[in-house]
Amino acid sequence: MNYYKTELLKDYNIKLIGMIEDWCSGFKMAKELGISRTAVWKAIAKLKDMGYEIETRKGKGYKLLKKPEISAYEIVSRLEKIDDIVNLIEEVYYYKEIGSTNEVAKKIGKSKILVFAEKQKTGKGRLGRRWSSEYGGLYFSIALTPILPLDDVPKITLTTGLAVCEALNDLKLDAKIKWPNDVLIYGKKVCGILCEILGEVELPLVIVGIGVNVKNEIPDDLKDKATSIKEFKDLTLLDVFEKIIKKFYLNYKMLIDERWDTIRQRWVEKSDTIGKNVVIKVSNKEYSGRAINIDKDGGLLLEDGTKVYSGECFYIS
Amino acid sequence: MNYYKTELLKDYNIKLIGMIEDWCSGFKMAKELGISRTAVWKAIAKLKDMGYEIETRKGKGYKLLKKPEISAYEIVSRLEKIDDIVNLIEEVYYYKEIGSTNEVAKKIGKSKILVFAEKQKTGKGRLGRRWSSEYGGLYFSIALTPILPLDDVPKITLTTGLAVCEALNDLKLDAKIKWPNDVLIYGKKVCGILCEILGEVELPLVIVGIGVNVKNEIPDDLKDKATSIKEFKDLTLLDVFEKIIKKFYLNYKMLIDERWDTIRQRWVEKSDTIGKNVVIKVSNKEYSGRAINIDKDGGLLLEDGTKVYSGECFYIS
Repeated sequence: MNYYKTELLKDYNIKLIGMIEDWCSGFKMAKELGISRTAVWKAIAKLKDMGYEIETRKGKGYKLLKKPEISAYEIVSRLEKIDDIVNLIEEVYYYKEIGSTNEVAKKIGKSKILVFAEKQKTGKGRLGRRWSSEYGGLYFSIALTPILPLDDVPKITLTTGLAVCEALNDLKLDAKIKWPNDVLIYGKKVCGILCEILGEVELPLVIVGIGVNVKNEIPDDLKDKATSIKEFKDLTLLDVFEKIIKKFYLNYKMLIDERWDTIRQRWVEKSDTIGKNVVIKVSNKEYSGRAINIDKDGGLLLEDGTKVYSGECFYIS
Repeated sequence: MNYYKTELLKDYNIKLIGMIEDWCSGFKMAKELGISRTAVWKAIAKLKDMGYEIETRKGKGYKLLKKPEISAYEIVSRLEKIDDIVNLIEEVYYYKEIGSTNEVAKKIGKSKILVFAEKQKTGKGRLGRRWSSEYGGLYFSIALTPILPLDDVPKITLTTGLAVCEALNDLKLDAKIKWPNDVLIYGKKVCGILCEILGEVELPLVIVGIGVNVKNEIPDDLKDKATSIKEFKDLTLLDVFEKIIKKFYLNYKMLIDERWDTIRQRWVEKSDTIGKNVVIKVSNKEYSGRAINIDKDGGLLLEDGTKVYSGECFYIS
């Protein structure tokens, strides 16, 4: 099976995983979870199918030998550790392999969902660019209905970049943000963010797509520009995921609590771009100058007073 | 053939239609249009395929006997009468029959296009409702990249409603606007508008979808709520289309020229809702009271100070 939809806090398989950390009989599980023995048997089969190694012994029941590196349930169990996460995510859609998590989130078309994929076949970055998405990376999208003025929606992009950067810093990685929202380690891209909007203009849906290179190999032709966390540290996908979601949720709450100024200041602190001479390409226009700040409205401020809201940023020496 | 893409001002078939209003030889057309005799022959065949009745006579050439009620070229020739229309529309996508013009516009995914369909199979209104779209109605979408703050994008919906209402008034129809954007004639809906947004949050695309009942029969189950222009006046699809696009373009220019206040005042003048007691349903909330104005930010203002930005509006007596 390739796809699992799991509603947070409602799926007994997660409890079942906890119960078989030591030997546990089918009878006990059925009783404690309030389900039939057949349901227990089916749940065990499903877990095995998802990569859980489970030993079965007559008279003793079931015992978990090994968890998979990642699974829908591991994702959910990490989410459940985060206070009030249901305000952000109510359902998880988990795929082994799909086109792209943003595309699937757009198709599902509702709020408070997380779409997670172990591998993306047609992962995309900003401006329609390819985003290499092999096994070992984190690829997920969150769909939210922004309870903030539409004008503030582009600030979600900066807020997300900051969240990823701070999460990596907490994991002792020397990450910085290149405007508008690339997260870099020692100058090489480790995370890309693509925020999209869709739906009726009065109440649109915002899709926040995040791709992080964790344990995946970087293709040769990208090695001078991109890097994976594994080059610096051995971290599990789950640990990186949990930190990022947690930070994202906290920062997003700050944004909707009208604390944009705090986010802005912290973004500037983490920025790799402020202070540098840049060229920004926006469709067929080009701006250049020294980047000096992020303005109150979210635009990148150049020394000559120019403000730029989107585009491709190049450093010049 | 079902679909014609035509770039405004660049397609010689339109000129060719003008030339054969009286007898014109293939030789003359080829010469004046700077194309080959074969190209002339192909163009004539294409026009016949689109419903143009053309007589061919040896020695005299071609003569147009009858134009179709509507066609890609008739649409374009009306558009070309509007000053600077290329600022709004550069390409026309014309279909006999498609799912819905908004869906196709979203799929094409670029700005400055008009998608027109003679019939929609899965026409939709706001809140995912069905919009009956038989032959004889006008169904089209315009895709634009709003050069205004994202916050002002919902004002495009009201601006569009006003444009349709004023266009119908110019055609001597007693149309009014029911908040947020239904256009009514004597209390029955004659036009629906669906504005959608999509793309990267920093530079999204806005799709303005307009459906007008002109000569189409209203399905029996909708007859107490909906009406067609033909119940009141005999107008051609082209005349109605031209008036609406023209008004839309003028009003949209006013919006981006920061003359929202003018649009707002005119909207209130044309409103069927202001002064009435209403119930507004928004997902699982409900607001009620007397509607007294459209506020500076585009919200509907109720007597008790409540402001509502979207929802379904019911009149109560």
